[in-house]
Amino acid sequence: MMKLQDCRYDGQKAFKLSDYPTSAQVDKSMRKDIEAMMAANIERMIELQDKFYAQGDEGLVIMFQAMDAAGKDGAIKHVMSGLNPQGVKVYSFKQPSKEELAHDYLWRAACHLPERGYIGLFNRSYYEDVLIVKVRELWRGYAMPKRCLELSEEEFFAQRYRQIVNFEDFLFENGYRLVKIFLNLGYDEQRKRFLSRIDEPAKNWKFSSGDVDERELWPQYMKAFEDAIGATSTKRNPWYVIPADQKFFARYLVSEAILDALETCNPAYPTLSADEVAKLEECRKRLDN
Amino acid sequence: MMKLQDCRYDGQKAFKLSDYPTSAQVDKSMRKDIEAMMAANIERMIELQDKFYAQGDEGLVIMFQAMDAAGKDGAIKHVMSGLNPQGVKVYSFKQPSKEELAHDYLWRAACHLPERGYIGLFNRSYYEDVLIVKVRELWRGYAMPKRCLELSEEEFFAQRYRQIVNFEDFLFENGYRLVKIFLNLGYDEQRKRFLSRIDEPAKNWKFSSGDVDERELWPQYMKAFEDAIGATSTKRNPWYVIPADQKFFARYLVSEAILDALETCNPAYPTLSADEVAKLEECRKRLDN
Repeated sequence: MMKLQDCRYDGQKAFKLSDYPTSAQVDKSMRKDIEAMMAANIERMIELQDKFYAQGDEGLVIMFQAMDAAGKDGAIKHVMSGLNPQGVKVYSFKQPSKEELAHDYLWRAACHLPERGYIGLFNRSYYEDVLIVKVRELWRGYAMPKRCLELSEEEFFAQRYRQIVNFEDFLFENGYRLVKIFLNLGYDEQRKRFLSRIDEPAKNWKFSSGDVDERELWPQYMKAFEDAIGATSTKRNPWYVIPADQKFFARYLVSEAILDALETCNPAYPTLSADEVAKLEECRKRLDN
Repeated sequence: MMKLQDCRYDGQKAFKLSDYPTSAQVDKSMRKDIEAMMAANIERMIELQDKFYAQGDEGLVIMFQAMDAAGKDGAIKHVMSGLNPQGVKVYSFKQPSKEELAHDYLWRAACHLPERGYIGLFNRSYYEDVLIVKVRELWRGYAMPKRCLELSEEEFFAQRYRQIVNFEDFLFENGYRLVKIFLNLGYDEQRKRFLSRIDEPAKNWKFSSGDVDERELWPQYMKAFEDAIGATSTKRNPWYVIPADQKFFARYLVSEAILDALETCNPAYPTLSADEVAKLEECRKRLDN
């Protein structure tokens, strides 16, 4: 059975997206077992999050990138629902506002970075700025000085990949860990999910005709994902390329990735100094009188 | 007479603070002339700012760093008062809040970065995080994971200087220009200014006894400034080390630095496409009927 480590790419060899399957082809009979394993992961995550929040010295940002209908919202809902919302901050990267476009492309992410002690969830992320912005050539229309735009597409995005690696290195060096997840959906599976969004009235709201426009650019998107993941994976901040065709297994792997990051942080409840313990004893006496 | 270029340091040779005077020793009889030159600079800045705002493709951030009483507030007041406040955003870096300390040290600056088209004024800046934070060893008490703090002072600040250079490179590549100003005040001149803040009731509010505590660490601060300026000056983002003992001349040089940056941006009013001109004509007709 496929494991988390099989999905992890840390930039140490060349990256080919086609090396990573869109389905782990787990037998359906395993589903109950997998779901039980995921539930156990979530229990452990809850324990660790409590310490993580109490300690407050490290921050965690979990980012989801994917094509439409790959299961981002479902993964967030099913994997993260057990966490204490007091320590979680979710931010969805929608189409940028005028104010956001008037800033640098990392501004939204930088402003919505959680405090240390919190788990930040980015539903999409600044990687949109090297995905749709590349595929749709949006950058060519940006209000930026000529010196920033008189570059070839290759130069422009090589610059962005470098900037992203620097930004993520900076975050690591300042107490943050990132979990970068690409839900790798198959082209045929997307078609099935779109059709069920059209066929089932309760799912209609999730569908827009624009989704089909993006689907028609599938090869360009896969190339953009391949380039971006290839250029921005490091030992500190690897990408997880998670097979997304089987939702139950994708969610399990997402829970594995988050749990792995929390275990690496290895949080502990703060311990008090002798002075602080003495103060607690003093407070006990005052409460007793 | 000392010129702006004499104050500019772009990292191309070793930096010694003692090479830069705290007074340009301009004859007092020149004061009226200098003030007239500054007024002319401000007139030109106002013209350029109007185009800069209309064009909206480039951002400018002017940062002031200095010891207390060096004239930051006065420079901001006298040099910037003529600008259209609609296009200016001022942010003062005070003692960081708990929320700010729970983020990375560039968070405040990143969040308060002005939109492109605006002039941002930073009264102090993230350089505080390599100045007072270094001199007072504040970083050792930060709530950050061990991996981030188990470094020597030299390693920790070498890392921060690199992070700052990367951040400023990133800003440049994304359409921003920085004007980094160090108002280089003499030790004796600070004493005189502190005494007048104590002697003159209208200036009392500007003084706090903590200012004298910092003054006692003067050599450590000068070393921190020297290290920081030496490590973070680049061709794209140089520092200006401006002699601050003569206020009228320091302000003139500040106006020179800002004007130089605006001239380099070389802003122009946006020109309309043939389609847009045709639309304007259509609007004229509708207004005439």
